[in-house]
Amino acid sequence: MLRRFGSARAALDVLPRLARRGDRAKTVTAITRAEAEAEFAALHRAGARLVCWGEPLYPSALAMIEDAPPILTVLGQAELLQRPMIAVVGARNASANGRRFARDLAAALGRGGLVVISGLARGIDAAAHLGALETGSVAVVAGGVDVVYPEENRGLHDALATRGTVVAELPLGTEPQARHFPRRNRIISGMALGVIIVEAAARSGSLITARFALEQGREVFAVPGSPLDPRSRGCNDLLRHGATLTENAEDVLALLEPQLRGIEPLRPIPAVAIPVVAIPAAPHWPTPGVAQPIGDEDVLELILEKLGPTPVAVDELVRQCQLSAAVVATLLLELELAGRVERHPGNLVSLS
Amino acid sequence: MLRRFGSARAALDVLPRLARRGDRAKTVTAITRAEAEAEFAALHRAGARLVCWGEPLYPSALAMIEDAPPILTVLGQAELLQRPMIAVVGARNASANGRRFARDLAAALGRGGLVVISGLARGIDAAAHLGALETGSVAVVAGGVDVVYPEENRGLHDALATRGTVVAELPLGTEPQARHFPRRNRIISGMALGVIIVEAAARSGSLITARFALEQGREVFAVPGSPLDPRSRGCNDLLRHGATLTENAEDVLALLEPQLRGIEPLRPIPAVAIPVVAIPAAPHWPTPGVAQPIGDEDVLELILEKLGPTPVAVDELVRQCQLSAAVVATLLLELELAGRVERHPGNLVSLS
Repeated sequence: MLRRFGSARAALDVLPRLARRGDRAKTVTAITRAEAEAEFAALHRAGARLVCWGEPLYPSALAMIEDAPPILTVLGQAELLQRPMIAVVGARNASANGRRFARDLAAALGRGGLVVISGLARGIDAAAHLGALETGSVAVVAGGVDVVYPEENRGLHDALATRGTVVAELPLGTEPQARHFPRRNRIISGMALGVIIVEAAARSGSLITARFALEQGREVFAVPGSPLDPRSRGCNDLLRHGATLTENAEDVLALLEPQLRGIEPLRPIPAVAIPVVAIPAAPHWPTPGVAQPIGDEDVLELILEKLGPTPVAVDELVRQCQLSAAVVATLLLELELAGRVERHPGNLVSLS
Repeated sequence: MLRRFGSARAALDVLPRLARRGDRAKTVTAITRAEAEAEFAALHRAGARLVCWGEPLYPSALAMIEDAPPILTVLGQAELLQRPMIAVVGARNASANGRRFARDLAAALGRGGLVVISGLARGIDAAAHLGALETGSVAVVAGGVDVVYPEENRGLHDALATRGTVVAELPLGTEPQARHFPRRNRIISGMALGVIIVEAAARSGSLITARFALEQGREVFAVPGSPLDPRSRGCNDLLRHGATLTENAEDVLALLEPQLRGIEPLRPIPAVAIPVVAIPAAPHWPTPGVAQPIGDEDVLELILEKLGPTPVAVDELVRQCQLSAAVVATLLLELELAGRVERHPGNLVSLS
């Protein structure tokens, strides 16, 4: 929108008109200036800040994924988001051995220079956060950064909010719901150079994270386990399909070594909270917002006639319409705002 | 020798002369007819028989390995040796879970039409034999077939000697020694379509069997385990290097399916011992023993001048001498009998 209309003001002005174009029942409107200011005040009270796509603190790996969140809410040490990161995720009903392994692994990865990301769930996630608390631990949560879930992780949430980092795509105060978790998982893998799965049953959430990692071109590591333990089923299955067998941090660091070369080791993080600035700096868009001369209704029709109820790849649309990828992306955004286009995983779109 | 000299009689006659040629301290002589007859009588008393390379009962997969044993002593159901076989081997100090897994796996492989081979050791080997006793279980032992080792497996040895099969390369009465075990392991892998490793520490005997399997072009299967269990180290390492991850019999049967097509499932083996004939039929040599016109000392010299203290591949010798592989093999045998050539793993030879 910024690229198409040249400025935030122009984009906001055109928004209601674009949305009216379709048959969308619900109109799309920007929030008011007062609402925005209230939100910033709430962030300030929570000690949180916003980090927008294109800003220096926005994780560079995450910026490159197809559906990167435009805004992250960040609590704690936002600077950790600039370091190379590795995700450690796994079963909530993890075994004692699995928890111990995850904690030791996370600590060793931290000593090796990696910030450890996880999902602040029970079991493996909590153990991984704990192990990396000294060296850098980032939780990506499914609800708002100020909503503690599950309750048993309140202490860990507090520790991460000061010594580590808590990140969310959804606004403050959002209660996490089932449908939020897979969306959250794409951020965990998207921020990381790779994802390590420690204990995961067949068809578990950790495998969703692994699938996102593959789609995003990230490394997938899996910790093997006995065939007699159902919590190993998912990991062994990943190994069968080419994940890197992982018995210790060296297995991970060796594979990532080319990407880590020249990165200095982490300094331990002080246990004292560092005050964070709640109001973000002005966004730096990678390509400055210059209005592009995109065709009008004709071009929109060109795209619409190529779309049907069956999802089609955006790349395929670009090829068939003989338009630039940027133009197609902008037009699809308009159609989406107008409620006429629906998005599907894997960069697919269909008519609503 | 049979090929070179045309008959067993002629080969035996020339043996002392060949051995004298070198500087060998110990002379090589054939045993006497009386000694041979005494050995056959002992085999008869033990209920055992000899199976020679080239005979129908000799396992066809084993016949194809580079250093196939010329004679096997067989106790029990020799017919099992004609069936497709799979090896299940692993740690002697196996966990209770590992044993249970091996036993269930062997039983399922048996139901799938495979005879299970193992080494009659404690732990995984014993469990595998036990699981396959109903469908076909073959023990390859390091000593003589009549020597029970370890003592705790006496009951299993007895059961295999009647309902299953016990096989040895070494003569009756041989007490197994440390150096016999690796040699025995090459027979286990050599008889099998593939080797499954269930629990194996780093640098354990099971990994020697896996290495033989690779050298012999057999499939290698490994059962994954927790990195916290040292008994999984060897298996996980094999997986890292490309072994097929194995959680159940289906994983094995699926991979071997092309080789098993058309094989009828095994009938359960009756618990009653079937008397075996102790005196073997005359050997059927794949190529009948016709004296081949091989050159004399000149050719031997040609080979000797190409040999040094550093082991060289027999294939390389064949290429460099421009002789047939059969001729080089026969001449190397002569030089070996004369104590002038030493063999090394991987079909390498050097001067003694």
